[in-house]
Amino acid sequence: MSDELLQRVKYLEEEVERLKNQLRMNNGCREEDDVNKKTTPETLDGQTESKPGVTISSKKTKKHSTQRPFDFSYHPRRHVALRIAYLGWEYQGFAVQENTDKTVEARLFEALLKTRLIQDRQTSNYQRCGRTDKGVSAFSQVITIDLRSSLFSPGLGVTLPDKTPSGTYPKTGTPAKNSAPAGSELDYLKMLNRVLPQDIRVLDWAPAADGFSARFDCQSRTYRYYFPRGPLDVELMAEAAQRFVGTHDFRNVCKMDVGNGVLQFQRTILAATIRPFEENASGNPEDPQAPHDPNDPYDPYEIFIFEIKGLAFLYHQVRCMMALLLLIGQKLESPEIINQLLDVGSNPRKPQYSMAVDFPLVLYGCDYPGLAWQGGGAELYCASAALQQQWARSAVETHVYRGMLRGLEAMGAESSKSCWLVEGSRMKNYKPLLERPCCESLEARIDHFVKRGRLERDDGENGGEAVHRGKRSKHFQDSAQPPTTKLN
Amino acid sequence: MSDELLQRVKYLEEEVERLKNQLRMNNGCREEDDVNKKTTPETLDGQTESKPGVTISSKKTKKHSTQRPFDFSYHPRRHVALRIAYLGWEYQGFAVQENTDKTVEARLFEALLKTRLIQDRQTSNYQRCGRTDKGVSAFSQVITIDLRSSLFSPGLGVTLPDKTPSGTYPKTGTPAKNSAPAGSELDYLKMLNRVLPQDIRVLDWAPAADGFSARFDCQSRTYRYYFPRGPLDVELMAEAAQRFVGTHDFRNVCKMDVGNGVLQFQRTILAATIRPFEENASGNPEDPQAPHDPNDPYDPYEIFIFEIKGLAFLYHQVRCMMALLLLIGQKLESPEIINQLLDVGSNPRKPQYSMAVDFPLVLYGCDYPGLAWQGGGAELYCASAALQQQWARSAVETHVYRGMLRGLEAMGAESSKSCWLVEGSRMKNYKPLLERPCCESLEARIDHFVKRGRLERDDGENGGEAVHRGKRSKHFQDSAQPPTTKLN
Repeated sequence: MSDELLQRVKYLEEEVERLKNQLRMNNGCREEDDVNKKTTPETLDGQTESKPGVTISSKKTKKHSTQRPFDFSYHPRRHVALRIAYLGWEYQGFAVQENTDKTVEARLFEALLKTRLIQDRQTSNYQRCGRTDKGVSAFSQVITIDLRSSLFSPGLGVTLPDKTPSGTYPKTGTPAKNSAPAGSELDYLKMLNRVLPQDIRVLDWAPAADGFSARFDCQSRTYRYYFPRGPLDVELMAEAAQRFVGTHDFRNVCKMDVGNGVLQFQRTILAATIRPFEENASGNPEDPQAPHDPNDPYDPYEIFIFEIKGLAFLYHQVRCMMALLLLIGQKLESPEIINQLLDVGSNPRKPQYSMAVDFPLVLYGCDYPGLAWQGGGAELYCASAALQQQWARSAVETHVYRGMLRGLEAMGAESSKSCWLVEGSRMKNYKPLLERPCCESLEARIDHFVKRGRLERDDGENGGEAVHRGKRSKHFQDSAQPPTTKLN
Repeated sequence: MSDELLQRVKYLEEEVERLKNQLRMNNGCREEDDVNKKTTPETLDGQTESKPGVTISSKKTKKHSTQRPFDFSYHPRRHVALRIAYLGWEYQGFAVQENTDKTVEARLFEALLKTRLIQDRQTSNYQRCGRTDKGVSAFSQVITIDLRSSLFSPGLGVTLPDKTPSGTYPKTGTPAKNSAPAGSELDYLKMLNRVLPQDIRVLDWAPAADGFSARFDCQSRTYRYYFPRGPLDVELMAEAAQRFVGTHDFRNVCKMDVGNGVLQFQRTILAATIRPFEENASGNPEDPQAPHDPNDPYDPYEIFIFEIKGLAFLYHQVRCMMALLLLIGQKLESPEIINQLLDVGSNPRKPQYSMAVDFPLVLYGCDYPGLAWQGGGAELYCASAALQQQWARSAVETHVYRGMLRGLEAMGAESSKSCWLVEGSRMKNYKPLLERPCCESLEARIDHFVKRGRLERDDGENGGEAVHRGKRSKHFQDSAQPPTTKLN
């Protein structure tokens, strides 16, 4: 293994170089708004590190490095929601883990600490909408947290400091540049995006009432899964997806996470659609709903989106749903398999099957009632400009592949009959799901974990369930890990 | 630096895993043709290494590991042309270099030696169409070489062995599976593609007359450079590209490689076009030539191709041409700049400017007269299926970016005004090319290298030029490095 790694170092260096280019580009971008030519908040601690993908000020200075420790008790706090977009491909998932530093949350807290917006995670009143798996991206991950504020007058979510300075800004406070005109808030987006890696952007923020929780006040979550048509019957998949809608027991369409106290598998799906990414790319350009002309063949290179909206999701639920749809699209299973697996009476145990790959999945939206989002402007432009450069490289590479494929077609190559998102030769001697060996039943799993002390039997808060997380549970201290709202 | 590398190891491991999946997929693919269930030629040496991206037989065995040394003198040789496609993004270029092992040519010779198709590079009568730079890909790189053959009867390019075995196949020869029916040739494509990395494929082969050279018998070379429209005026670029057509002195539109004996900068461009990748994507779907409707705005996310065909190209020539076109497309230079730079009388020295990035460039075609290409069939299908999987991942990632960009547009983000292929803020205080400092003149460079002994003055083969490569030239022993046909 280490042998390959060494061989790839050169390639890595190019990656680093590319990120540094985007960095320079971002600096250029910053110069376009005059406000921030001077020292930026993240340099309060005088650090001059410059890791790739971390936006640093080109005007760094050590002039603050000898300052007194930052005294948060002089500063107002504000309860806010932050809307975060990230590309999950190079991360081990959203939530912090013991075994790796490469998580989105780890980067996020580095930025929050570096900008002195929080003192530490424990006292920050932090909640997240949900976790996303290794390799999964998000356009709208939402967190709620208490941040340092510049408001000394009452405002939504504002808590005034214990030690109020006599009218003026505290000596040890942030430099004047950070305090916007009286009555206006710190520029949270600019402060954070400066120090976050390019592939993590804070897109928006909103003041929130005390007690408002990104975790519990989320009304619905929307995921998107991108895939190419290839040989798939997407019309059949679209029809089949409808079968997920409603309230069902999804224990056969998720990874049962009993060890972490997930004991209830009923979830409500509000909508499930499959549609082309370019709405009018397939069918009639004038009318996307128009029936497809049978004489002109479908384009196997067209990209589709499986979009699913629900109140909350189970661990790996969306990727298991997608795995079933891909089997149906390949005509390896009939759409009826969905109803059969949702009928836990007839099928109490999950047949063994592997979920769909991670990289096409995006947590696209989270709905919250009554939040007044404040973002936009220069930060959106910079995020968009950086993303356009990343898109450009990816799009060019995609078309280089496509150009070669066209060349091969011209030489007489036929296109692959198996799903393009999974390894080939899947179709050879396919074993139907209901004929496969099954996983352990829920009851067996509960017994297993009770014996090992990761679950305890008593009057838990889970209503009917007299079982709850035990002291030896992996996530025992993980407050942001609700037993019944664990997400993909 | 090493710090970032460590941080990225996890990401690397995923890359490796992805390659291994494609590997498995390829094996699956192979099983679809019955011919090769047994030991494959590359296992003659009994090796069982399995680096990622190297196609190995799933049926490996050590049974040959104790055999006698392979005696090439028993085998016929055949002079052939091989047509090779590769993705150059993870390589340091096509041609072997002293300072790195990560070249396409290095992988190619590993495969040729492992399959016992050649004894060594020196005796293989090897010639290549041309080099490609670090990061540059090819759909049609062509080489000519003498390979081990299974033909013991006369045939085009065939040289019978010194020691002819008495009718039967030599004891130390390749196993029976490799000898196709009498009179038919070894399956060069299958043998080589088994042991080549996934991102290098041999697409085709042709028998060639003795003395036929991939380097000297190439009639024309065609390059493609892929780019997104973004804010560019592609119509203006298309018009400007025409100005390259014809025979001109391109010393101001290349990297002068005087140190390697490149002293003559006249090149002939046969065609230069810019067109959308999807021919009927822009303008009227029915008629690609129809004028664009001014009311419906251009799609900045549309991909275009700069395609250039010439007899031969100078070092970095295409990327310098593209750099000029990108400046013109951004309205930073007028199309006239091309004529001005080609007029070496008025502009004898090249103004300093950086060439376009490497990854969008592809050596797309090379024309040879009278070669009868033999490839196709199962190998094309496998190459295509593997490429479709790589395309699928790339296309999905591209659409994840695009989906986020649409989300940002919906939030009010405007798209970047600078070229999406280069770092932003280029446009700010742009310095016109003709006002920039210039590079050394050709004459100054020649003097410089003559002084250092890398060039020598005498009657060289370069006709009028009385200067040729000196003993201390970097590429002194590089036979495939013609002074006047060095390519991008």
